[in-house]
Parts: sequence; structure tokens; C-alpha cells
Amino acid sequence: MKASHFLISTLKEAPADAEIVSHQLMTRAGMIKKLGAGVYSYMPMGLRVIRKVEAIVREEMNRAGAIEVTMPVVQPAEAWQETGRFNKMGPELLRFQDRHGRDFVIQPTSEEVVTDIARQEFKSYKQLPKNLYQIQTKFRDERRPRFGLMRGREFTMKDAYSFDKDRDSAQASYQTMRDAYQRIFDRFGLQYRAVRADSGAIGGDLSEEFQVIAATGEDAIVYCPNSDYAANIEKAESLAPAGPRPAASEALEKIATPGNSTCQAVADQLGLPLARTIKSLVLATDEVNEAGEIVKTQVWLLLLRGDHDMNEVKVNKVDGLANFRFASLAEIQDHFGCEPGYLGPLNLQKPVKLVVDREVAVMADWICGANEKDFHIRGVNFGRDLPEPALVADLRNVVAGDPSPDGQGPLAIERGIEIGHVFYLGTKYSEAMNATFLADNGKPTHFEMGCYGIGITRLPAAAIEQNHDERGIIWPDAIAPFTVVLCPIGMDRSELVKQAAEKLYADLLALGVDVILDDRGERPGAMFADWELIGVPHRVVLGDRGLKEGLVEYQHRRDAAATPVPLADVVAQLKTRLGL
Amino acid sequence: MKASHFLISTLKEAPADAEIVSHQLMTRAGMIKKLGAGVYSYMPMGLRVIRKVEAIVREEMNRAGAIEVTMPVVQPAEAWQETGRFNKMGPELLRFQDRHGRDFVIQPTSEEVVTDIARQEFKSYKQLPKNLYQIQTKFRDERRPRFGLMRGREFTMKDAYSFDKDRDSAQASYQTMRDAYQRIFDRFGLQYRAVRADSGAIGGDLSEEFQVIAATGEDAIVYCPNSDYAANIEKAESLAPAGPRPAASEALEKIATPGNSTCQAVADQLGLPLARTIKSLVLATDEVNEAGEIVKTQVWLLLLRGDHDMNEVKVNKVDGLANFRFASLAEIQDHFGCEPGYLGPLNLQKPVKLVVDREVAVMADWICGANEKDFHIRGVNFGRDLPEPALVADLRNVVAGDPSPDGQGPLAIERGIEIGHVFYLGTKYSEAMNATFLADNGKPTHFEMGCYGIGITRLPAAAIEQNHDERGIIWPDAIAPFTVVLCPIGMDRSELVKQAAEKLYADLLALGVDVILDDRGERPGAMFADWELIGVPHRVVLGDRGLKEGLVEYQHRRDAAATPVPLADVVAQLKTRLGL
Repeated sequence: MKASHFLISTLKEAPADAEIVSHQLMTRAGMIKKLGAGVYSYMPMGLRVIRKVEAIVREEMNRAGAIEVTMPVVQPAEAWQETGRFNKMGPELLRFQDRHGRDFVIQPTSEEVVTDIARQEFKSYKQLPKNLYQIQTKFRDERRPRFGLMRGREFTMKDAYSFDKDRDSAQASYQTMRDAYQRIFDRFGLQYRAVRADSGAIGGDLSEEFQVIAATGEDAIVYCPNSDYAANIEKAESLAPAGPRPAASEALEKIATPGNSTCQAVADQLGLPLARTIKSLVLATDEVNEAGEIVKTQVWLLLLRGDHDMNEVKVNKVDGLANFRFASLAEIQDHFGCEPGYLGPLNLQKPVKLVVDREVAVMADWICGANEKDFHIRGVNFGRDLPEPALVADLRNVVAGDPSPDGQGPLAIERGIEIGHVFYLGTKYSEAMNATFLADNGKPTHFEMGCYGIGITRLPAAAIEQNHDERGIIWPDAIAPFTVVLCPIGMDRSELVKQAAEKLYADLLALGVDVILDDRGERPGAMFADWELIGVPHRVVLGDRGLKEGLVEYQHRRDAAATPVPLADVVAQLKTRLGL
Repeated sequence: MKASHFLISTLKEAPADAEIVSHQLMTRAGMIKKLGAGVYSYMPMGLRVIRKVEAIVREEMNRAGAIEVTMPVVQPAEAWQETGRFNKMGPELLRFQDRHGRDFVIQPTSEEVVTDIARQEFKSYKQLPKNLYQIQTKFRDERRPRFGLMRGREFTMKDAYSFDKDRDSAQASYQTMRDAYQRIFDRFGLQYRAVRADSGAIGGDLSEEFQVIAATGEDAIVYCPNSDYAANIEKAESLAPAGPRPAASEALEKIATPGNSTCQAVADQLGLPLARTIKSLVLATDEVNEAGEIVKTQVWLLLLRGDHDMNEVKVNKVDGLANFRFASLAEIQDHFGCEPGYLGPLNLQKPVKLVVDREVAVMADWICGANEKDFHIRGVNFGRDLPEPALVADLRNVVAGDPSPDGQGPLAIERGIEIGHVFYLGTKYSEAMNATFLADNGKPTHFEMGCYGIGITRLPAAAIEQNHDERGIIWPDAIAPFTVVLCPIGMDRSELVKQAAEKLYADLLALGVDVILDDRGERPGAMFADWELIGVPHRVVLGDRGLKEGLVEYQHRRDAAATPVPLADVVAQLKTRLGL
């Protein structure tokens, strides 16, 4: 490609709404253009990256035996009503009516449609296993779309769906996809981790996320440096504490803690470690009748160690706490007779259901709120001051240094961006839609399913979060918009430069290198700044003075300075660097 | 590809709603699957064809210097409100609101969004010309979607938009696209014609359609076999008749024509040619105030020769007849005092505006309705029985045998399916959106625009309408789902067959041939029927008996019978046939 035939459009300033670096750099590099909230055009420079991502994904999906289809963006509501998701999903499922008043959705994923295809196409176990995938436009009507392609409303996803005859075969299909994902992420040239994940609303009981490591990532990834254990913090188990509970050694004592409404403030006042305090969180669960009216509300008190954070996914899995909410101020006043900041399990106005983190269950002589403004109680002990806890569970996020569940040492935590997800779904969708095949015993049997996503348009953003500096983007070779940029200086004035640049361009094209020749006639400073912003990994500068000595300058985007290279050697050197 | 790793799904019967052969065959060959009215999944076999169409289009667009972008499927209403199309377009523009109640559309085309990009990106005439294109999902909420991919609601279109600094440059860009379209359609391997077209609602004053010739086509294409004149019948001019009007020779005579309410019936009754009769069509135009209320209605009488058909596009262009409608029965009764079937320009109850086809204007002694039930009048003459017509225009469709407008002989008519369209738009959109660049005189100037579409998902359907027989589809090589199919007979029983098939498969793959090996183990009859239905153009059958003599059988999908070919020669023969 010659730059004069392309659309290069860089900006000095990022737009005001670009909060994260990938959004800023993709906009400044002219890769995306905002059309509305969470809705972007992919400009030529950005589309090249997306197409390379798509090509790698498609190649590896095909290699893994998956078969490409395309399901409609606009989908009639019927299948979505069969699984109940038409009503159950929140407003992020975009629903509308056509000119005849029929209900439609814009696909956020395609479990329903692909299951409908399977129940028509796969009649016999002899046709299984099968894996169907698409690379297609999706839409989620996010309440607050932001971060550019990281959390847009319209995006491109690769979604694959496997259909198997039994659980063993389904798990083999899952493993095949997991292996393909590793090849895909290896080829992207990004640092990533496959981590155990909660399977969330989509259902199923085995699920892993592929996380691109980046300090700015939304997700916390827990891993063991000594083993291959890795999990999303939502999922990572905090092991039960090893030893038994120490005996009580302090007397119960009410202490004035005026204005100290946080565990930290109380610990500071008493000169004790934060880990001696207890955090009291008040939750509620509502029982609803068929008309959607609340017929009964249960208030819960959750006890965590003062230095720990609640893990919502784990709490949701406690018996009775599915779909919990935080209690209202009125509910708290009603049960505790006190405002938040001084709450605790003693001296309640009305009974609540107590649930205690495993760590709290083995603590002695702890400190909690007194259910009286500006007062706490210290020296609290189970079995003496309140009954032994009936409900003990893992309720908290792990912290760095916690023991790894596999016993291989302490855990570490880093941040990541979820780019891929593999799920074993079981028969959730095939049962809801009565999708069956004839098994070898002649009986109609529900498909065992898996689903497997990759955020195609999110990936470039994640790659940038991981690979950038103050000058701009640094693309891995495999997904760079161009692999090599040739920057001739004064091409219009020097025949020597012009000829060398055109010849090098032709030689690299002939090798199949994705090279761009910057023939725009920009001044060197502006030209270099453009390509550093855009992030093309390999740059060759051709100047008149150097060429008179037979030299050009090579610089990798990560190099601090350029290296003189004989013009005669530059193709060979690039071949080596590009692995050709 | 091996068939066992692919999804082959053929049906004996077409679905009841498949009215045309391409819809029947695409469904039976497992290329598409209906999800809802006008909404289809592209199944693996169909998607391969679509991808080949896309690849050819993309390659030629790039070669022509167009630059690929992707604009959102879901578009905020703002730009559509700027051009007024948000309100002006009919219900085929799908509008909806997001969770915050903001208006959106699903793109049917992207003039607004691309013009918005241009006004941000192209600041100077030095950046022009530019042509941006996308291959992207579109949606039109057709009132009655049907005919499979021929008139679906969701479809894929390639849409390109050119931006130029002046009219000359814009026409050069138009010509560049027109040339690219010819290369594209040549590569598809289809019979087609580029025809002059009406530019319709999209505006502009230069427009051609690319029509795939097919007996079942919706469009009538008028062409001159002796020249390159070709036009959509909507657009094709009927030349003014050569000679002057003959003198009146008959007296006016009222004749009883009981029950004969059509021109044909009257001509039959009188034993005269249909071309002696006159067809009276009553139209109306409404004048509307700002509140949308009709403040005045004008009734028109249109006179056509009895054997001619009205051309709505031409009538729309007559001064005062833009947005005409057919008159109501009440309006007809009110002005003519008679019901349709016996209408004419004499003895009116109330005055109407008369508009006369050029052919009628030179007729003498004609026959028309008497404005009295069961009566006609013969021997009618302009200038004697009614005034010379004030308004004469080309109002009719040409018929085969009419003289070509270029004077090169008589016209012929064939049917076609519109697959591509090139428009010169002028400044319609750039003015509506105030999209300007700085011209070389330093002044802000509106872009001269063109737009250029190809129906990517419609093309396979058109190809099938043109190329099929009673056994199924016959694909041109370039867009066949597979170019060659290998059909081994008894591969599981004969090691000879197995080895020959596997080797031939590997040899063809190594040559880059898109070959499928049917290793499903179907019986020969079923296997051949499948591939004839699917329409793979080249078939090689490998059987044990033939192989023992070193022979296989080759058959092109159009051949009546198979030809024995030495196994040793088959690769060389295929190379020749495929042009490798």
C-alpha cells in the first residue's frame, strides 16, 4: 500500500470522552470514529487490524474442525421466547418491533438460533460432534457505553457452539476449543492467561476466560506463580483457614468510637491490626409471587474480616442468597436500630439470618459495631457472646499471599481484559428448546452443548492497553495494520531516495510483507510521529545522506534509537525479524 | 475439505413458501435456512459462495483504489434527520429506540454516515478524490419479503461512495467504478448487461444498473442487438413517431359494446387491430398544506394506445404529475359520469387535465369509451372532435420492435435481475449535510458524490436463476461453493479407491484447487444427486472397476454424460479446465 492511496488521519488530541489509553490512541491514530454512544465506524487503519484478528481466528477455528455459518443480526423473538431469555434478559437485549408489530431482537449472542439449526440438522448421533461458528455483528444496549471498542454497544464477536452426544464428548470438544484458543492467543503475540471463571447468567458448570494482561484491565486475575493455577477473582477460592479457632481471651467491652464508622478508623483508634475487626454487610432477599409482588423479605447479616472484600459471585451461590440485594436504610434501621458504620451481630432489634465468612468463623476476640451510633464492641467471641455460626461459607475475594487452592504456594494478583471465554453449557439450551438427536440406543437425547466467544473488535483495544508508550501504540506483528513502514525523506527532491524506496517497497511486497510506503511528502518529524502513534512495529527510514553511503535506518517500535543498516542487507534483516 | 468434516444437508422437497427456483434450490441444497420472514442464516455451503462473491468484489474495489471501512449496522437518527430521510423514507427504514429512548435506524444504505465521515476527514481538495466502501449487513423492512435471498429483509451489500472536487472528476470516479463493476461481473462468470436506469428516490442524474440476465427476472431490460444501447424499461425512451398524423377519414359514431370493457374486447368485437383503440387512465394529484391536509385535487386523463402499457417513472416526470396516484372510483364517477371500462375524453361531466402519449398524438380515427356504460365511440380525431392535445409526452413502456433511441435498429427485450447499481449523486447529500472541503480557490465547496452498490447475498440467487436445470444448480467456477468434487465409490471397501481418492485430493489441494472429497460413504445415486443439486461444476468419480484399468470419470455439471479419463491425466485435464 502507498500512503497516498490510503486514508491516514491522525489527531494531536484525544476526544474528551476517551477515558482509557486504547480509546484515546485508537481515535488519535484514526482507527475508529465515533458515530454515537458506543457505536463506531471502523476506519481503514482500524479495519486492517480487525481483519487480521478475524483471519487468525477463522484459520484456527477451521483447523479445529469448526464450520462457519452466519446467523442473522436481526432475529425474530420466537426462539428467544422458547428459552425465556426474551423476557429474562435486561434492557441490554435490544428489542424492537417490525412494521407489522412483530417482536425482534438484535443478537447479543446466538445460542437460540444455533440450537434451532442443530435440532433441524443433526438428527443422529452419527452426525456428532459438530461445532458451528460465526464472526458477526452483535449489539448490547449497554446502559453506559464507554471506553471505545472496550465496552461498545455494536461490536463483532466470534461465537462458536459445539453439539455433542454425551458429556465426555462435550468435554473433549471443550478441550479442542480451549487448545484452539491457546493457538489463537499465541499467534496474536499478546501476554495472556487462561483463567477459571464463573459461568454467570449463561449457565453451565465449566468455564474459562482468556484474559489479556494489562494494568488497566477491569478484571482481577488470581494466579499461582509456581503452578498453572489461574482464575478470575470472581471464581478463585479462598481456602478454609488451616488451624482451629483460638480460645477467647478478652472480655466483651463496649467502646466509644465517635465518628469512626469504618473498620480502618476503629483499628487505627485502638492501635490494632485491621484484621482484628469485622465488617458487617446487610443484604436482603425478596420472595415474589406470580404477579411480581414481593410477599416476603429476609434480611441477612454478612460478616467479613475488616481487611477483606465481599465476592458477589460467591455470595450469590450461598443457599437462599441467589439474587440478593443490599438492604435499604429503612430495613437496616428496622433490624439494627442503628445506621450503617456501627453495625454488628449483637443487640439486634429484629432477628436476621447470619452468614459468616470462613475466615471470620475461626477468629477470636474480634471487634464489631455495637448497633449504636459512635460505639463498637471488642472481645467478641462465637460460642460465648453469640451462638456458633450456623452458616459458614467462602464469601470473600482472595488477596495476594493467600494460599493457592492447588497447594503450590501463595497466590499473586494481576489485572486483565477478558477477550475470550469458553463455556461448557450442558443441556441448558437443548432442554429449553427440546433440541434432540437420536442416540445410538435409538432414543431422542438432548444435545450436550458448549459455547465459545472471542471479542474480535475488543481485541485491538486490549492489545493497545498492553502495548503502548507515551508516543502511541506498539502493535505485535501479527495484528499490526501494516508490518513495515518505509519512510523516505525528501522523496520528491532526491532521485536516489525515490528509487531506493520504490525498489525496497517492491521487494518487500514480492515477499508478501504487508508494507506501507509513506509517499505523502510529510516532513520527517510529522511522519515519524504519525507512525509511532499508529504503532507499525518495523520502520525503515531512507535518506539521501545515508543512501550515498549505502545505508538506511531500521528501528523497531520498541527500540530507543535507529540502527544503520546497509541497504543491501535490509531485506534479509527484515526477513529474519519477521520470521520469513 | 472432506465432506465428513463439513455440513451437507440436502432436501428432496422445497419449502412451500419458495416461489422461485433460486429460493427452492438454495434451500434444498442446504445453503440457507429461514429464521423468519425475509431473515435467513447462511449455512456453510451458502456462506462459501457468499465469501467468494465478497472476495472478488473486495479485490476489484481495492484495485480501483477504493478504501474499505465498516460503518455501523445500528445508526443514530441524527444524520438521517439532517438529510430528512429519517422522516421521508417509508416503513422499509427500520426505526427503533434504545433503552434511553433515543432514535436509531438499522442501515439500509449509508449515505448519511459516509458523508459525515467525509466532512470530518477530507478538508482539502488535495485529499480528493476518495472512495470509501464497505461490505456490510443491511436491513430493509420489506412489506412482503419473499423469494429467499432475492428480496430478503436482512442482506449484505457492498456500498461504495466517491467524493470528488468537481463534476468532471466525479464523472471520472463514476467511470472508474463502472469499469470495476464490469471486471467484477466478468469474473463472476455470469451473463449480464449494464443498462441505463432511473435514479429513483436516491436522487442524482446519471445511473446505470448491472442486470444478470434471467428469464425469471423482475426487471425488463430493453436493448438494441446491433449496438450497446441498453436500458431498464423504466428508463428506455420510446422515440416520437416519425410521420405526421393521417387525416381523419371516419365519422364519429357511438357504438354499443355491451360487456366489452377492455380495449381487446372492443377491438375483437369490431374486428379491428388493438392498436386502433385508446386506453383511458384516470390519475389524480393532491395539493397538500403544511398540516398535511389536502387542499386541492387535480384529476388527469391519460391516453395510451390500447396495446401499450403506462410507464410510471415517465408519468412521474410529467410536469404536475410527480407523486400522482390513481383516481378513486368516486372521483372517476364525478368527472366522467361513468364507471371504468367505458371512459374517454369526450362528453365529460367535469373538466380534467388531458395528457397524451406521443404515439396517440399522431393517431387518427381512434376508438375510445363513450363515458356511458356499454358504449364506445369510434372515428375520434384530434382537432375535429376534441382540441389538439396541449400536453404530449412519452408515457409508455417501449415494446420489442420499437426503434432504438440510437437509431441502430429495432429494440429487443429480455428479463434481468438487478445486482449492481452505479449512481452519480451530485451534491444532494453534501448540500443537505453541509459537507464541504476547501477548493483550490480557498472556498468551502460541496463534495460531488457518487454511490455504487452490489447485492452480495442477492448475487448467488441471481446466478442460480440464470444457471440451473431440473437436477439443481450449475455454478460458474468463480463462485461455486467448491470447484471440484471427488466422488469415490465404495471407499470403505476398496483400498484402491481409497488411495486414489486421497492422493487426487491431496494433489488438487496442493495446486490450490477448492476441492471437496465426499467421504460420507453415501450410495452413488444419492451422492451424485446431492452434488448435482448443490451444483459443483466439476466432478470426478473414482470406482474400483475403472481404477483397475487406470481410469476415472470426469463430468462437468453441464455435460450430459461422464467421460473416462486416465487417472494419470486427470490433474492435468482439471488444470486446463480451471485455467491454472
